[in-house]
Formats: sequence, C-alpha cells, structure tokens
Amino acid sequence: MPGSGRIHHPGLARRVVDADAAAAHIRHGDTVGMSGFTGAGYPKVVPQALARRISDTHAAGHPFRVNVWTGASTAPELDGALAAADGVELRLPYQSDPVSREKINAGLMEYIDVHLSHVAQMAWMGFLGPLDVAVIEVSGITADGDLIPSSSIGNNKTWLDQADRVVLEVNSWQSAALDGMHDVYYGTALPPDRKPIQLTRPHDRIGVPYLRCPEEKIVAIVETDAPDRNSPFKAPDADSQAIAGHIVEFLEQEVSRGRLPRPLLPLQSGVGNVANAVLAGLANSSFEGLTAYTEVIQDGMLELLCSGRMVSASATAFSLSPEGTARFDAEAAVLRERILLRPQEISNHPEIVRRLGVLAMNGLIEADIYGNVNSTHVMGSRIQNGIGGSGDFARNAYTSFFLTPSTAKGGAISTIVPMVSHVDHTEHDVSVIVTEQGLADLRGLAPRKRAELVIERCAHPDYRPALRDYYQRALRDSPGRHTPHLLAEALSWHTRYLADGTMRSQ
Amino acid sequence: MPGSGRIHHPGLARRVVDADAAAAHIRHGDTVGMSGFTGAGYPKVVPQALARRISDTHAAGHPFRVNVWTGASTAPELDGALAAADGVELRLPYQSDPVSREKINAGLMEYIDVHLSHVAQMAWMGFLGPLDVAVIEVSGITADGDLIPSSSIGNNKTWLDQADRVVLEVNSWQSAALDGMHDVYYGTALPPDRKPIQLTRPHDRIGVPYLRCPEEKIVAIVETDAPDRNSPFKAPDADSQAIAGHIVEFLEQEVSRGRLPRPLLPLQSGVGNVANAVLAGLANSSFEGLTAYTEVIQDGMLELLCSGRMVSASATAFSLSPEGTARFDAEAAVLRERILLRPQEISNHPEIVRRLGVLAMNGLIEADIYGNVNSTHVMGSRIQNGIGGSGDFARNAYTSFFLTPSTAKGGAISTIVPMVSHVDHTEHDVSVIVTEQGLADLRGLAPRKRAELVIERCAHPDYRPALRDYYQRALRDSPGRHTPHLLAEALSWHTRYLADGTMRSQ
Repeated sequence: MPGSGRIHHPGLARRVVDADAAAAHIRHGDTVGMSGFTGAGYPKVVPQALARRISDTHAAGHPFRVNVWTGASTAPELDGALAAADGVELRLPYQSDPVSREKINAGLMEYIDVHLSHVAQMAWMGFLGPLDVAVIEVSGITADGDLIPSSSIGNNKTWLDQADRVVLEVNSWQSAALDGMHDVYYGTALPPDRKPIQLTRPHDRIGVPYLRCPEEKIVAIVETDAPDRNSPFKAPDADSQAIAGHIVEFLEQEVSRGRLPRPLLPLQSGVGNVANAVLAGLANSSFEGLTAYTEVIQDGMLELLCSGRMVSASATAFSLSPEGTARFDAEAAVLRERILLRPQEISNHPEIVRRLGVLAMNGLIEADIYGNVNSTHVMGSRIQNGIGGSGDFARNAYTSFFLTPSTAKGGAISTIVPMVSHVDHTEHDVSVIVTEQGLADLRGLAPRKRAELVIERCAHPDYRPALRDYYQRALRDSPGRHTPHLLAEALSWHTRYLADGTMRSQ
Repeated sequence: MPGSGRIHHPGLARRVVDADAAAAHIRHGDTVGMSGFTGAGYPKVVPQALARRISDTHAAGHPFRVNVWTGASTAPELDGALAAADGVELRLPYQSDPVSREKINAGLMEYIDVHLSHVAQMAWMGFLGPLDVAVIEVSGITADGDLIPSSSIGNNKTWLDQADRVVLEVNSWQSAALDGMHDVYYGTALPPDRKPIQLTRPHDRIGVPYLRCPEEKIVAIVETDAPDRNSPFKAPDADSQAIAGHIVEFLEQEVSRGRLPRPLLPLQSGVGNVANAVLAGLANSSFEGLTAYTEVIQDGMLELLCSGRMVSASATAFSLSPEGTARFDAEAAVLRERILLRPQEISNHPEIVRRLGVLAMNGLIEADIYGNVNSTHVMGSRIQNGIGGSGDFARNAYTSFFLTPSTAKGGAISTIVPMVSHVDHTEHDVSVIVTEQGLADLRGLAPRKRAELVIERCAHPDYRPALRDYYQRALRDSPGRHTPHLLAEALSWHTRYLADGTMRSQ
C-alpha cells in the first residue's frame, strides 16, 4: 500500500499517480463533478494541476474550459485556481470564491444558483447533460474498495454514480476518526419510484458508512496530505452577540408559551460569524438536549456537541477553524457518537426538513419592510455567493429565522430597505427577522403589521425615520394598500447607494 | 331524521336549528374556521345569517367583526356577504372574492396570504391564537356520528379538531356519491412526533373516509340544499389553446428524450381557464394512463377522468361548472374509483409533492426576464387573489410550469417585464414559462441565458424590442452582470402603466 497507508485495496493502490497525470483525464468541454462543501472535503491538487494545464493550453492558443459542479463552496485551490485560469465555462450550485465572483459579475462565467437539495435530482433528470468526470476527495479506501468519505459528502454519491470516469484524491490529512461517521443513503430514485425516507430523528441511520464506486470507473488516484480551507474563527462581535441574545430570548418565550418543546426542535444554522454567535449564545443558555439537522458543523456547534448541551448533529460537512479541527481530533471518540454526515440531498431534503420541524437560521443581504429576503444579490445585479441551502431549510422549516446586522459598509447600507432588489425568500417563507436592534416575529401578520414591526424592531435608528416616511407615504398614495409601495421610489435606496456610496439621503 | 334524510345519527338530528340560531353561536372577536375550497363545500347559509347579524349589530352602534380562516376561496354567500357587512377583521389563507379584494386593497381588512399546505400546521403551532368556532359543510352524518365530507375537504379536519364549538351545515344538494370518495389522514402531528407519510402513488389510501368530531362540540346543525358556486365553464380561447399546445409538445419531447415516463408524472393544475385548456390539450394528445396529484378537479380534469385517459386524481376539492356537476352525477359510479379528496395539508404536502415528482402548472400575473414570478400583486401593491397552493407545488415539484397570455388589459400590460413588482416564486423555483408565443425551458440556465430565452420565446412581439433594449443596456451598464439590471428603470413599466394606463412607451 502506498505511503499514506489509507488505501487498503491492492488493486486500487496500483492506480496511484501524480496530480498532473490524474488531471490529464479531464478534457476541454468536460463537465466535472467535484467534491467539496463549505471549504471541506474538496480535492486539493487535481484542480490545481488542471488549472495549470488550462493555462498552458490557453497560452498555446487553444480553448480549454470545463463545467464545474460541486457540493457547495470550495477553496482557492479549486474555485480560485480554475477561475483565475479562465477555465470555468459554467459553475453550479454555490460558490463563495472571490475570483469566481468577479468573473461571474463581469459576465465571463455562467453561474447557476440553485437550491442545494435540488442538485442531485437535477443531475439525474438529465437536462444538465452528462457528467464526464468526478474528482472526489476521500479519507481512505477499504480493503473491499469502499470509499471512506472525507470531511464533507455533498453530492459525491451522485457524482460517483453518474460520472463516466472517476479521479480520487485520498487525503491522509483528514482524521482517521471520520471512518464510520457518515451515513450514505442509497435509497433515492427518480419518480415514480421514490419511497418515503424513513428518518424520524436527526441521528437516525438510514444508509451505509461508505461511498461505492465501480472499480473500473476509477481512472486515477492521487494521494494528498493537505488541510481543508479552515478559515479562522472570529470571536462574535457585539452585533452578533445582540442578535444571538434576541434569538435565545425568543426561543425561551416560545418554550414557556408551550409552542416549542424544551430541547427545542432540530437547529439549522447557516455559515458565518452571526450563525456561530447564535450557537455560542445557546451554549450559554439553559437549553439542553439540543439537536441539529443542518448543512454544516462549525466551531460553535462543535462546542455545543463537546459540552453535551447538543446531543446529536446531522450535517453534510464540517467547516472548522484550525482550532476547531484540533478540538475535533482531541475529542473524536465522543464526537463520533454525536455526529452524522449525509449526502446534501438528504441533509437538506424538503421531506425531512418539514418532518423534523427544523428551526432554520440563515443570514441575508437585505430584507424589506414586508419580510421579503434577498440572500444573493448586491444591489440587485451582483451575485455575492448564492442561495445555498437557505431556501431548502427556510421553505420547509417549522420556523425560519433570518439574521443580519442592521447596517453594512460602515452604516452606508441599511439592510432593511423599502423593497429588496432581489428576492430569494418570499414574504410567505420568512417567519422571523433579527438584527442587533431587535427581533420581528412576522408569523401570522398581514403585510402592514409586518412593515411596522420590521421598521420599529429591526431597522437601525438612523434609517428608521426614512423607512417610516416611505411607509407612511406609501400607505397614503399606493394604488393598493395590501402591500403599500411607491414603485417609482421603491428601489431608490439602492440607486442612491450606487450613485452616492450611501443609502442615506443627504 | 329531519327532512333531508342525510342525518342518520338520532342525537345529532335533534340539534338541527335554523341558520340564525346557528349563527348566534358566533360572537364579536371570534376566530371562525369555515369549510370551502375554490367555491366548493363552503357553508351556504350560516355565513349569510352571520352577516345579517353583523349588519344589525353595526346599525345598533356596536362592533362585530370576526377572523375568518378557510380552506381557500369560497363564494359570495361567505366571503362576499361577510366582507360587504364589514364583518371581517382578518382573513386567511386565500380568497378570490371581489368585495373582499376591494376591502383588503382599501386597507380595511387584514389578509394573510400563506401557502395552503402551511395553514393547518400554523393553526396547530399556536401563534395564530385559538379557533373559537368551526362552520363546516358536510354532505351527511352517519348513524355513528361520522361526518361525510362535502365537495371539498380543505382544512376541515383541523378546524373540527381545534374549534371549541362546531356548527355543521348538512347540504343535501351535494351528491350522495361523495360518500367514500374522501381519504382523511389522521396521522399528522407537530414535531418532534411526525412520521413519514406512507403515500407513494397518487391514489393510495392512507386515511379514513369520514371526518370525526366529538358530539359534545357540535352546538348546531343546519340543513341546506344549495349549490356550490359552480362558475360556468369557458371554452378555451386561442391563447389558452396555444399555451396548451406548447406544453403538450414539450412533454412529448421530454418523453422522447427519456426524461419523463410515458404516462408522465402526476399533474397539478391550477385553477382557471388556461389550466383547463392545458387539460383539454392533454385530452387530445397521445398520452394515456395519466394521474393527477393536485388541489382541484375542474371540468378539464373530469373530462380526462371520464374518458379514462387519466386513471386517477387526488385533490382536496372539486371546482366544477353546472355541466361538470351534471357530468359528475351521471358518471359517479366510475368516477368514485378514480377520485380521492384529501385534506389540503396532504394534497399540497411538500413531502408528497417532492416524492411523487409532480408536474406543477400554475398561472401568474407577471414574470420577469430572469424567471421570477409574481402570482399575487397587481403593480406591486394590490392583492389579486393570493398564492394559494402554487408555492406548495412549484417549490417541490419535479418541473414547475408557469402559464400566462403574454399581454393583459387588451395589450396595455406585458406580462413579461424587466423586473416583477412582487415575487412569489423565485428564479430558483421556476422551471418553464409558457405564453401563447412560446415556451422557455429555463432549467439549467444561468440568468443571462434565461433572459434571452424569455424575451424571444415568451414576450409579445409588441414588447420584445423594449425588453431587448432594457436587457442590452443593462448588460452594458449594470453594476453586476450576473443578473443585469438598471434599478432606476427596472420598475418603470409599472409606473408607466399607473401613470398612462399602458406599459407601452409612447
């Protein structure tokens, strides 16, 4: 067995090559399914070798571009390298890479921003075209040839099933303790052959711990020993702590009113510092026996799991800081009993999200006074990252929370606006909006009551007078008073920002 | 047993009173859960008696308003009468009544426009407050006291379970053949006690044919013999026929490409003439063995069921013309084997819609060039009807179609606009847009490709040059080119219409 000791299948051990040789299996025009979800479990070296090859080919005057499908966001070694080489024709379903973002917003790369739970289904439906190659990071290969998944599963099951050719990266940096923490469900199908997914608790096992791939499809294996993206953990700032405080208070009230059980319902928490702060807030609360049914396990959730305040978490990926990774390694024996990683079509599945009654907490770019949420577009046209799983959870959640500081860009942007410049979550799907200013519980409220609450509870005091003024004039002059709007002015906060660099009226 | 012969339980038969006596059980400030879905199965006389009492109370200088929850839209005898009496404080979840619409848009009535699959869950969650009275039409009462549902089920199970007091209308106009056509699922629960719903085919029975209600809650029973709303059937016009033609052609292509099975997948079809035209188009197609998993059975679907081209249909309500009702009565023996009516939380349940892979077809008010759909608001502020079940189906469908003629108001409105003035279905949830001009298959396309397709395939030729001009200038001048927009101009088509009565530039 080669150097890493992670490949226990003799036949497959003989397929180990270097990254350049592996990347040679990818051709101009190919569609490539890569592993990777929130900077975890993405291939570390083959995409960079591919990027070099693309650059060389371009330098020689020939075209070379591929379509890249992933789980979600990856890292500079994948999205960054391929985008910098102008090697990506089309990208789906989610990315957060700065180079890719610039290419997309310059109109140089196509980007299909879809719900993460939809991706596998879309690939099977056929309209996206065939998948030529899969490049998948795993943490090991068993003697039977089963693939031990890495720090994320994402769409790997589907990519392995669908690709003509498979390239594996076996990463010995990944903890050996991952072996056994995965639950890969092989029961999905296209309609009319779908069956109920028999999962009723976040920690239920319904699948197998390993990924399968026919040996003959595996054209190359590369050994690596490189870390995941591992963004540093930022301690929660005052705004994030205030947001967390409002949420914990709300949850306590819901429990005391008998509307939520004491251990709450399974939590979903988006990626980022505000989400981490909410989890930190729960760590200091009186709640016990918590569970999570979510996409990603960040440091804040790891802390809850280590302390025992959270008894189980189901996700599709880790997204840990270097300290979080060290903590995981140190407490792996305990955490193995409390964590399951699943394919993202299951971690985000509408059937399960609805059944479990998930409490969904996601960030946003802006919300409007009527409760519509923009999660993806800056000033209506520039993609920031993408919708990710926020729609999977918000749409079918028991309660969908959206969290944001009330201002951005040093106060030049109000995240509460008269009308959002793009909608990812409609008024029908947003339950609660929280800023550092306060919490607006929009459930069971007609639009005008929502507007009053969002302005008074969530908007920054500096912007409240202008929002009140807009709303009052809309109430008077709008052609309809169900959702009063002055359309000539509804997006003027955005145009003012584009012209003056601030939403404040001078 | 009283006159109608429909009340076979002796104890309950003694509770028959007149409508005024029954309405006396409803008090100022009460929340009242009424039956009724798309003009079928709503109470016919108690709401009118209530409206008279409200008017009399107002004339005497006293307040009298109630909150009204239903299944979906009802009829002039319910929404019309109560709204005209200014008796409705708050209305949910869907209505299409012209008097109510005016009150809502005048700011005189609160209206909470929610997904139809969410209503029962919301009522159980508790934040809407208690349900004081249920007023439910049934088609009969068995000797055991079980309630034989009427021509719709809607939220009746939940209203009967939750209400303190229950008033029944037993309507002998409803066909006796309805007995046995219902499937009332009593397996729902709040999380964490939810179980998989074991339904894998549209026609699976998972419940019981009758509604239950504790005898002691039934405070009054009224006998009626009055027809459902029964809007006349309009023969499809040329635009609707063209839309239907595009859809049938698309479905045939999908089958020939192996992307859909020959009997297709279960159809959902929104209410209205365009939907009816699509069903008529299928009646003249080569498809056989069709099924439906939908909200409403209209004349077009009844025709498919009678002809045998559709083998089964699951819905929560009928919405038939007088001729359709006569046809149902004449062929009830056959149709009983092919139709099931369910509670709307099951007919529209995200778990089932996703599992069955429903092909969802719904109308719209306007769509934008990037595929965002407005189903509810005229010029951004006036509510038309509501989102109904369109979001339940579109969001979790296998393929979500949105259908509309390309213009409205004699050509003064383009239903394809640069940016919609309200969003009910986001770009992430819209698969296909169809007008009489053509069909745009948006699946797997990034925003700019979607825009080109929507403009060239769907927009009316009179509006195409202006849309191309907007898009080309946005492509040049937009701060981001992922979704190019000129925010100062994006809603100018709407403001022009409000000012000039037309979206055409002069």
